[in-house]
Amino acid sequence: MIDIIEKTRDGRPLSSDDIQRLVEGTVDGRWPDYQLAAWLMAVVCRGLTEEETFQLTGAMAFSSGRPEPLGLVDKHSTGGVGDKTTLVLAPLMASLGYPMAKMSGRGLGHTGGTLDKLESIPGFQVELPLETIRRQVEQVGVAVVAQSRDLAPADRRFYALRDVTGTVNQPSLIASSIMSKKLAAGTPHLVLDVKVGNGAFMTDVEPARELARLMVSIGRYYGRKVTALLTRMQQPLGWAVGNAIEVNEAADCLKGQGPADLREEVLALAAELIHLVTQERVATAWQRAATALDQGKAWEVFGRWVRAQGGDMAAVERGLPLAPVHRVWRAEESGIIRQVNTRAVGEVALILGAGRHRLDDPVDPAVGLRVYLKVGRRVAAGDVLAEVFAESEDHAERALKTLAGTVEWGDPGNVPELVLGRVSSEDSR
Amino acid sequence: MIDIIEKTRDGRPLSSDDIQRLVEGTVDGRWPDYQLAAWLMAVVCRGLTEEETFQLTGAMAFSSGRPEPLGLVDKHSTGGVGDKTTLVLAPLMASLGYPMAKMSGRGLGHTGGTLDKLESIPGFQVELPLETIRRQVEQVGVAVVAQSRDLAPADRRFYALRDVTGTVNQPSLIASSIMSKKLAAGTPHLVLDVKVGNGAFMTDVEPARELARLMVSIGRYYGRKVTALLTRMQQPLGWAVGNAIEVNEAADCLKGQGPADLREEVLALAAELIHLVTQERVATAWQRAATALDQGKAWEVFGRWVRAQGGDMAAVERGLPLAPVHRVWRAEESGIIRQVNTRAVGEVALILGAGRHRLDDPVDPAVGLRVYLKVGRRVAAGDVLAEVFAESEDHAERALKTLAGTVEWGDPGNVPELVLGRVSSEDSR
Repeated sequence: MIDIIEKTRDGRPLSSDDIQRLVEGTVDGRWPDYQLAAWLMAVVCRGLTEEETFQLTGAMAFSSGRPEPLGLVDKHSTGGVGDKTTLVLAPLMASLGYPMAKMSGRGLGHTGGTLDKLESIPGFQVELPLETIRRQVEQVGVAVVAQSRDLAPADRRFYALRDVTGTVNQPSLIASSIMSKKLAAGTPHLVLDVKVGNGAFMTDVEPARELARLMVSIGRYYGRKVTALLTRMQQPLGWAVGNAIEVNEAADCLKGQGPADLREEVLALAAELIHLVTQERVATAWQRAATALDQGKAWEVFGRWVRAQGGDMAAVERGLPLAPVHRVWRAEESGIIRQVNTRAVGEVALILGAGRHRLDDPVDPAVGLRVYLKVGRRVAAGDVLAEVFAESEDHAERALKTLAGTVEWGDPGNVPELVLGRVSSEDSR
Repeated sequence: MIDIIEKTRDGRPLSSDDIQRLVEGTVDGRWPDYQLAAWLMAVVCRGLTEEETFQLTGAMAFSSGRPEPLGLVDKHSTGGVGDKTTLVLAPLMASLGYPMAKMSGRGLGHTGGTLDKLESIPGFQVELPLETIRRQVEQVGVAVVAQSRDLAPADRRFYALRDVTGTVNQPSLIASSIMSKKLAAGTPHLVLDVKVGNGAFMTDVEPARELARLMVSIGRYYGRKVTALLTRMQQPLGWAVGNAIEVNEAADCLKGQGPADLREEVLALAAELIHLVTQERVATAWQRAATALDQGKAWEVFGRWVRAQGGDMAAVERGLPLAPVHRVWRAEESGIIRQVNTRAVGEVALILGAGRHRLDDPVDPAVGLRVYLKVGRRVAAGDVLAEVFAESEDHAERALKTLAGTVEWGDPGNVPELVLGRVSSEDSR
């Protein structure tokens, strides 16, 4: 292991055998935390070559064999505020005949997690045995479950260490972490939603594009079809931020309603996945997906999916109940929204209790907010800018006070598109 | 701590408060190994400024207060093969009226340790209570003891981690490790013997000079008088390599005899120390020191010192007994020695059992060798090149076989001086 650390420290490439040993010792516990931490910091300082990144990702992905894939299509998002796309995309893809099985995570800090949102549906189970998942995917075409501890176990150890050693932000480490789990799950078609902006992990387009390129290259190296979309996260996606409140908004979207940007993002991701599977034109695929939303086909599959995982679909149909203290923030004067501090909006959800600071904190499903803050929006005095659903007056007050500081007024000039860029394994290099 | 790691990772300087927190948490165990390991690797990759290095060294040195110094002069060597200078220098300085109290270490790998050499004298004690040491320094003028565990405790933890995380070889880390212990001991005058060559930690002059400069600057920053000599280690110092065999050679030197290079090195170090204390000219100091050796004054103090620490001085006077299997290596033909693989000679001592691979291995005091290998020496066929003292025929055979591979023959051209360079806190910058 010291030899491996020294090679990376000195900028000498690791052989594929080195990387195999590194990952094996990480999984079986042979390498102590302090040696892995030193290696991770050497990677942050010196980088890894593309070839090393491929080998690392593969070694992480396949350390416990190569399972049969559960679905035909998969999706990953790098995380943002108000991102409920999986709740819509998964049943939408299933309704079109492309089964989607997805391992998801929990929310942390200012970003929410799909599992927390799903669990706001009474009875919804996210921990299921593999055989149950497999049967469900066959019968319903969709399953979203907690990531198995057996999936890419090296990543779990690397990730825990990166979090506490200042080694999170390195392209090869980020790409290998994400892609090892996707490769391990085995799904042949994958869409990556790489979020860019002040509510995302990456705030600038170019580093995000580089990360997207690297992830797509890894996928191609291992024979997967992968498209990455760079999507803007300079304001929350849709209006709702929270758990039950996001499920309600996803339900609207599944019925052809709800906020336009959420629908646009779902359709953009769906169209890319359809294109990867069928090669049909992206524009045609988009139309097919939009029709599936508008005709209620995706909503129908959503109902079957929720029931299959034990969820109370009648509660979703009534609208999941929200927290009792409802406060509204209205504009005092007219103006244009120049900028939204999206991360701060995510932190308002934290204040209300919708998110967590540590992975074992509980989450309150009923609290949340709807923010009608879109960059470039022209606001008149008295317009509703946000609604808060809190458990107490005190929380509601604090939330409104923080929200007031999230907006900058003025002319933003050009407002960026929702999709800022695209990288695909199917394009010629 | 993550904040500290990130600063160093990004090349942003740590404040003196940051460094204080870093060292305190290292001593009290608040910072886990993996965070320290990541920080150490960030230091290797990005470096520390001189100011950061000063603060780090001071924080490490004074984390448990500032004790009264035990002696007037101190010395540190970066380690080589056959280096028994402390055994001669300490009583020599005492005989001139400059008390020397030194904390020493044990040997590891191909380099020997002063404590192991002293313990080859029957009865010699290296673990003494502080008050006993203090009284002995007052009465005899010299004490050499094992380093206290309370001395610069952060260094012990850093060192153990550096050893297993590929972070040993970084100038600020090396300098702070050495100087923190010397500052903690509190001695006002210090000579540093920075060895350069294929038997030393540093093989090239320039990096060694940079390290020397940094250590001298640290000393000056904390008001100590420090001179560093760069001395060649491209062959063993003197002839003897082992434990008892080195004590016997040191005894010869103390009586004005023994190998010339050992005597020269002792006098060079002594002259620098005297100059630091008295400001007298180095050449005059050298003469005074040489006279003390030639007139037996240093030898007399050596006897009092050995007896004060419980050693059997009669055994030293008779010559400490060596291992029974005595083999001689003679030159088969004439030639000039172009190069000696000094590290390999050190490893022969390991084969014989004179050294250790791990810090808890036992050491055999009686085994060892004398090597008459000096670069530039003209050898005639039949000349003795080395003598081996082993516990078994088998060990002796292996030792001779390895020794035969340590010499390259041919004209070396210019042979470097013993003293390759000098850096002193007393010179204008």
